[in-house]
Amino acid sequence: MLYLGVDLGGTNIKAALVDETGSLVREAAAPTGLPRSAQSICDDIASLCLALAGDRTVAGIGVGCPGMVDGGLVRYSNNLAWENFAMADYLTAKTGLPVKVGNDANVAALGEALVGCAKGAHSAVILTLGTGVGGGVVLDGRLLTGYSGTAAEPGHMVIADDLHAPMCTCGRRGCFESLASATALIRMTREAMDAHPDSLMHRLAGEGITGSTAFDAAAQGDDAGQAVVLQYVHNLAVGVANLINIFSPQVVGLSGGVANQGEALLAPLRHAVRAMVFGSKFQPRQTTITTCTLGYRAGVIGAAMLLR
Amino acid sequence: MLYLGVDLGGTNIKAALVDETGSLVREAAAPTGLPRSAQSICDDIASLCLALAGDRTVAGIGVGCPGMVDGGLVRYSNNLAWENFAMADYLTAKTGLPVKVGNDANVAALGEALVGCAKGAHSAVILTLGTGVGGGVVLDGRLLTGYSGTAAEPGHMVIADDLHAPMCTCGRRGCFESLASATALIRMTREAMDAHPDSLMHRLAGEGITGSTAFDAAAQGDDAGQAVVLQYVHNLAVGVANLINIFSPQVVGLSGGVANQGEALLAPLRHAVRAMVFGSKFQPRQTTITTCTLGYRAGVIGAAMLLR
Repeated sequence: MLYLGVDLGGTNIKAALVDETGSLVREAAAPTGLPRSAQSICDDIASLCLALAGDRTVAGIGVGCPGMVDGGLVRYSNNLAWENFAMADYLTAKTGLPVKVGNDANVAALGEALVGCAKGAHSAVILTLGTGVGGGVVLDGRLLTGYSGTAAEPGHMVIADDLHAPMCTCGRRGCFESLASATALIRMTREAMDAHPDSLMHRLAGEGITGSTAFDAAAQGDDAGQAVVLQYVHNLAVGVANLINIFSPQVVGLSGGVANQGEALLAPLRHAVRAMVFGSKFQPRQTTITTCTLGYRAGVIGAAMLLR
Repeated sequence: MLYLGVDLGGTNIKAALVDETGSLVREAAAPTGLPRSAQSICDDIASLCLALAGDRTVAGIGVGCPGMVDGGLVRYSNNLAWENFAMADYLTAKTGLPVKVGNDANVAALGEALVGCAKGAHSAVILTLGTGVGGGVVLDGRLLTGYSGTAAEPGHMVIADDLHAPMCTCGRRGCFESLASATALIRMTREAMDAHPDSLMHRLAGEGITGSTAFDAAAQGDDAGQAVVLQYVHNLAVGVANLINIFSPQVVGLSGGVANQGEALLAPLRHAVRAMVFGSKFQPRQTTITTCTLGYRAGVIGAAMLLR
């Protein structure tokens, strides 16, 4: 059986024809072209999908959409400026196909859990370390969406309930996202550079500070860079250990730009997390902490898997 | 069909014959009599169960056991001083009945989720506010036990990652348990009494400080008591909101001594939590925060429900 997967972003609509194993058969993309109406965007999604399918039989369309998704309804999407749009019904009317919609971060997590870094695993928590900390939780092959349909917001788990903790975009202080996103890493790097005018980070950041600046400096022995990496890894470890103490997943998979650091991130992270997991030494089966493998395709593959 | 449920504690073994609706048919108890061997304790459990069943047909025995339970194996129980004891196999050999074993807090949560405060709900997070913060998570009628079998340790979710946060019994600082257990409430009460020699709490605590001291003083208008209650409710709200942002459960149920405060706890807690839930105003279905209803019987009923 074949499935259509759509990853709707603020910039591009990505779509793919995906087979039952999660392999891509064909891909296509179109600009999202914001600002424009939900109907107009969905007309383009429908055209992309019908063109990808051609005369092949497909089981349906899965869509990953930014924002709060509740069944086939997009309750609220800040990025798209949508409120209560019945996306699944609209797309079904346009294509004649069954449509399922999920939150984009959740859907990408489903892709990684079923086809990518956690393929075959009992359970997985996937975290995307980007502008924020997004993610999804997959238990027994199914996305955790909760009673409201909007579960799995690990980025808004407070890990530092403190008046002096960094402010999160959600308006609270000390959210995991405000301490472990790429944005947080860049903020910490900037603060360390201000405090250490002699740090190598100033030279490395010639083109602008990125999530790599502190890691690159640390690799070259820069003390201030190493301190930033240590603090960032600690913050990330606190949130990851919390999620392990709650879910005990078989796999924690990390994606997003920061995850590209690979072992420079994973090795100290695993070490820090192990000391934080409750009753770690008595647990016969430990959580594997790794990086995601599908890259930008996790979105379209996961969306297709909504229908499998 | 009838089921046997056993709640094994450090002081007593409680057992019950339970019907399919979760109603108690008969109860019995015996002292745990620590210290003594796992085998000797299980011999008493078997006798209690067989006596309760009499000549009735029962589907099997469910047991809630303190510590780290992995399938029918008790990996580690600090309270009982057990390590890697094959409890289910031992009890099956003694009784000829199928046996399932779960962590005691998890099993009590299953009872509340299926028969008590969250009966009929899509999902529930149950928290016991006692010496620590125990709990369990029930999704679609099933306990979340995770890959290791030992999931759902919400008490060891760090909510205040800070060198000055209170030390938890697990050796880390700022765990939910160290800030929202009855033990934490008593510590906060003692600290406030030391700082406020004129507080009503001194008179009310004549017999010793309890989890009610600050609530009782607050109800009589004592400023220091009200400050303790406010801070405690805030701490509890941070952890509860984290769990809602992660699970979006239909019900959060609170048990343990502190939960006996009822609306004096629940009303300010609901108010505080609502402001902390991510995207709360766009969610069509909100989590209900309530108190548990089964009392000490949650353990035996939940244990029996392991077999339903």
